[in-house]
Amino acid sequence: MESLLQQSRAMCPFLKRTSPTALRSLATATRPAPGGGRTVSNLHAVARRCPVMSKALAVQSARLSPTKRFTSTAATVAGVKSLRTCPVKRDLHTTSGNGASLNPGTYERNERVHHNIAEVNRRVDHPAMGRDAAFSGPRPDAPKTTRFDYDAWYNGELEKKHKDKSYRYFNNINRLAQEFPQAHTASPEERVTVWCSNDYLGMGRNPEVLTTMHQTLDAYGAGAGGTRNISGHNQHAVALEDTLAKLHGKEAALVFSSCFVANDATLATLGSKMPDCVILSDSLNHASMIQGIRHSGAKKMVFKHNDLVDLEAKLASLPLHVPKIIAFESVYSMCGSIAPIEKICDLADKYGAITFLDEVHAVGMYGPHGAGVAEHLDYDIYASQDTSNPASIKGTVMDRVDIITGTLGKAYGCVGGYIAGSAAMVDTIRSLAPGFIFTTSLPPATMAGANTAIQYQARHQRDRHLQQLHTRAVKAALKELDIPVIPNPSHIIPLLVGDAELAKQASDKLLEEHGIYVQAINYPTVPRGEERLRITPTPGHVKEHRDHLVKALQAVWNDLGIKRTSDWTALGGFVGVGVEGAEAENCPMWSDAQLGVRENEAPEDAVVRVFKEQYEPRFPRMKTATPVRPAAAIGNVPVGVAA
Amino acid sequence: MESLLQQSRAMCPFLKRTSPTALRSLATATRPAPGGGRTVSNLHAVARRCPVMSKALAVQSARLSPTKRFTSTAATVAGVKSLRTCPVKRDLHTTSGNGASLNPGTYERNERVHHNIAEVNRRVDHPAMGRDAAFSGPRPDAPKTTRFDYDAWYNGELEKKHKDKSYRYFNNINRLAQEFPQAHTASPEERVTVWCSNDYLGMGRNPEVLTTMHQTLDAYGAGAGGTRNISGHNQHAVALEDTLAKLHGKEAALVFSSCFVANDATLATLGSKMPDCVILSDSLNHASMIQGIRHSGAKKMVFKHNDLVDLEAKLASLPLHVPKIIAFESVYSMCGSIAPIEKICDLADKYGAITFLDEVHAVGMYGPHGAGVAEHLDYDIYASQDTSNPASIKGTVMDRVDIITGTLGKAYGCVGGYIAGSAAMVDTIRSLAPGFIFTTSLPPATMAGANTAIQYQARHQRDRHLQQLHTRAVKAALKELDIPVIPNPSHIIPLLVGDAELAKQASDKLLEEHGIYVQAINYPTVPRGEERLRITPTPGHVKEHRDHLVKALQAVWNDLGIKRTSDWTALGGFVGVGVEGAEAENCPMWSDAQLGVRENEAPEDAVVRVFKEQYEPRFPRMKTATPVRPAAAIGNVPVGVAA
Repeated sequence: MESLLQQSRAMCPFLKRTSPTALRSLATATRPAPGGGRTVSNLHAVARRCPVMSKALAVQSARLSPTKRFTSTAATVAGVKSLRTCPVKRDLHTTSGNGASLNPGTYERNERVHHNIAEVNRRVDHPAMGRDAAFSGPRPDAPKTTRFDYDAWYNGELEKKHKDKSYRYFNNINRLAQEFPQAHTASPEERVTVWCSNDYLGMGRNPEVLTTMHQTLDAYGAGAGGTRNISGHNQHAVALEDTLAKLHGKEAALVFSSCFVANDATLATLGSKMPDCVILSDSLNHASMIQGIRHSGAKKMVFKHNDLVDLEAKLASLPLHVPKIIAFESVYSMCGSIAPIEKICDLADKYGAITFLDEVHAVGMYGPHGAGVAEHLDYDIYASQDTSNPASIKGTVMDRVDIITGTLGKAYGCVGGYIAGSAAMVDTIRSLAPGFIFTTSLPPATMAGANTAIQYQARHQRDRHLQQLHTRAVKAALKELDIPVIPNPSHIIPLLVGDAELAKQASDKLLEEHGIYVQAINYPTVPRGEERLRITPTPGHVKEHRDHLVKALQAVWNDLGIKRTSDWTALGGFVGVGVEGAEAENCPMWSDAQLGVRENEAPEDAVVRVFKEQYEPRFPRMKTATPVRPAAAIGNVPVGVAA
Repeated sequence: MESLLQQSRAMCPFLKRTSPTALRSLATATRPAPGGGRTVSNLHAVARRCPVMSKALAVQSARLSPTKRFTSTAATVAGVKSLRTCPVKRDLHTTSGNGASLNPGTYERNERVHHNIAEVNRRVDHPAMGRDAAFSGPRPDAPKTTRFDYDAWYNGELEKKHKDKSYRYFNNINRLAQEFPQAHTASPEERVTVWCSNDYLGMGRNPEVLTTMHQTLDAYGAGAGGTRNISGHNQHAVALEDTLAKLHGKEAALVFSSCFVANDATLATLGSKMPDCVILSDSLNHASMIQGIRHSGAKKMVFKHNDLVDLEAKLASLPLHVPKIIAFESVYSMCGSIAPIEKICDLADKYGAITFLDEVHAVGMYGPHGAGVAEHLDYDIYASQDTSNPASIKGTVMDRVDIITGTLGKAYGCVGGYIAGSAAMVDTIRSLAPGFIFTTSLPPATMAGANTAIQYQARHQRDRHLQQLHTRAVKAALKELDIPVIPNPSHIIPLLVGDAELAKQASDKLLEEHGIYVQAINYPTVPRGEERLRITPTPGHVKEHRDHLVKALQAVWNDLGIKRTSDWTALGGFVGVGVEGAEAENCPMWSDAQLGVRENEAPEDAVVRVFKEQYEPRFPRMKTATPVRPAAAIGNVPVGVAA
């Protein structure tokens, strides 16, 4: 034993740095085995996680396992042998298709099995067995004869969620296209104002989008009817991917069921197929990227949120020749922070990495054509150029980003996701990613509607201008009231609550007492202690909505005694709230000049004036391109009526 | 060294079973290192895959790595330091938002970097360096100074796909709702008949479905606007999940973006969270299940397709107490085989496993309410009972299956997927699966349309009856012509071609010369050598379509000299084709009695007579429940007009 330990210590990175005392205490301390009923030593539990020892333990455990009793007898095997080559119909079921009735024998047999198990359980529960099982130290697994209790496991998992307050209750919210941003609850008569939708620009009710969708539904039906390879590829997919490629100034684009799938499938494919690939991931990256990276099996290095020093240190620690993907977002949706995209591109160039930029919360919202923050960073170039002309945008930030991913389900108001980049990269993902290959295409009407939405937002600045102006007005009003907005340069308004229970109470109170729907954002979407309400204005949230929201928040903050900005300041500040200089550092991504706001103009004044001067004359009401549907249904609903 | 080797041999499962001679030859033979430019010994390459040695090698390689040259200097770090706490806007880009112009210095700097790299490459390519790099045997990694060539890698992957004929060319097919099953190609005037869509019942153009979708679009807009937790939960989701739970006689259901996501997310979640879970997977399982199992990290055991003996042997080899999931499909889409569901439930009961049944190609198609094969196996019970009454279906096959997954995108004509099962299981997946939690909900109109489709198919048998009768007629006609149909009891008609190139040629010829679209199914969707054309009749494929198809296939088989059934018989048979008794063993899942076919009636006669007697009088044309839309648009299009 001692010699084995010596050998092991020489080879094993774990044993090498663990003292004999620590090993002894690990070997004698015990913990309940997973599944319950007995205990194992902590060393045994640790060994299970070792790639070498776990196999040895499995072999040993299989040798000593009591399950041989359950191995099929010859008779059983013979009984099912006839099914091997072909599932003949009479063998698919003990009762035939015609005049079938339940065979009571089947269930008697099952009951017998259960009786036996119950007896076995009684034996296992016997006090003597209990003492025996509690015997500690490394030894073979004790015989286990109980079946796994699936229901108990499900209930246990749910109980954990309830206990840590992360169990989610969904609110039944039915957003009304003709009363945007109002919705009805489970009761069709009850109205609430939605203040947390990601349909940021109200494109879900845009008449051009809806007209396109109605026409496409009538012409091409409800669904695509197949994968892209088998009858699900059509002119709508071709046109949409063409529009997306042009939007981002890339050679090609590829559409997926969602951007969750796009991120997951793309990162998993690149990370698993590129030899020795390393993925460097921002610590606040979305779950879809985290999942893609995990699924890739590639080496993952998490860098501190938006921290170029940390990112550079990690890049520099890697050999130049290994493929590296820097995966990050432009707008981080839960705090509204924005990544230093250009500097990250610089680092990628320096260290031979490629950039993977998730613009999910930015497409439609930033840039003169709504292509996202990367476009916005070269605002004037893009405002004066044809994005689809590669020569004119060479060297811009958007041009330098290798892979851009985005969604059709937020600012574009539909559903689906995509990647854009070089033709070879896109074709590689198209050819290799199971999450793209083996799933039904998005419906023609969805693709056509999204295409219309993108083109509409590429032509019109109004919706994102109004959205930004409304955001400024709400942020200013809340600041006035000492309500803690987490400072950020984007269109997101995260209100710090800092407690899961309190955040849920605030959300419930807003809904029940004020008719305002703002979902509480709790763990695991944000870290514990950083619970918040996340508010997203839209072009449709006119002055009355904003005043109502601000009053309601003031009341709820008072009723529940939620911390104010000044309280956080007194505590030294937290996640940017009450931190000196944090606001100045977070001046809005959309500048005053880009929005047409005058120097020192109050946000509430600016929003009214800009709308009146710039948009009211040009957009007295939405014009539909080809109004084939009855005007009564949608034509009379102006979009984003007033400031 | 010798003592280290002895120690290693004692500990390491690989070294233990490898002879000193083999080790020596591994240590001296070399291979090019990934990324090119140098070679490593084969032993070194193997060691990289070892969980223990790979870490040791990484430490050694990091110590000796030349990349320290690239570590950021103090100056660089100071230069970006101001960005650490907050992405101040002026730091987001070197050019400001207003009057931005490209900074030419940036690109000069980059060019310089490229020049340096080119010089380094020249040095590496020097013959003397080459000889040095070719020195073999275990030694530290040679310095690598070239960056990873991403474009070359993409192109290499694509080249592989071209070489092995698995590169996919998508056909632009636009299925016309008002001319079902016709479509137009990239040219709107050119018509083809689609014979490979998974819109099996033509529900994508069903007037009730389209009416619901139009109404929902108008009332609730294009998209859901959020995740289920944040403003994307609504009455449409509640109603759809309620319908799905009732359809399968389960407590609850949960809707996902697609059934790919449903399978992936559910198996990955259960497999990764249940302690020591083992997943037993049918060898022909769909890519979505394979991916979910891989992502779970759980132990996977693949059992031979539909082979109960193999499944039982694998179940019996596992301890009774570990959680086990048997994952399988009812109808396997590429060969049309059907699983012995009841026997698999018996084995699950015996060995303490749960069953995970993918009914993607069966929902809408089998059972008196279209709930799938599990419902079909107790046809008469379900035909006479209210499925939603738990007491009446207790102990049926469908009741015994623990988790059923299905799609809204095939027989139901829309898009999306779901799981159904116990309330606790569904709530656990709802609470834990990132692929469900962190993605935008399906659009209200999609959920409402799918709900209408399911309810329609639960009320009417006509579409699936006609689909089955047409399938019988096509199979009979092809048998007559010695064209090789892979025998199966389902609605799928797989024609064996057995060669990738030939299958693509046949598909192209059908499209170009006969106006018939049947996609070739090649590797990796089916194994190499089993390439096929997969034909899927619908209720809309009337006699003229069928006659046209059969003639065209006969011509293509002649033109290309594709093997006939008799050729395969002469070769001893292959995948059921030309195998004696295979057809008799694969009598259709829908019996003559269930379809109303008379004894010894020819399929072509039966399809005409049954339609005339049973359906024509009752369905002179499709009735829409609430025809709010102009009749001219859709009301004049009967569904599945004639047999």
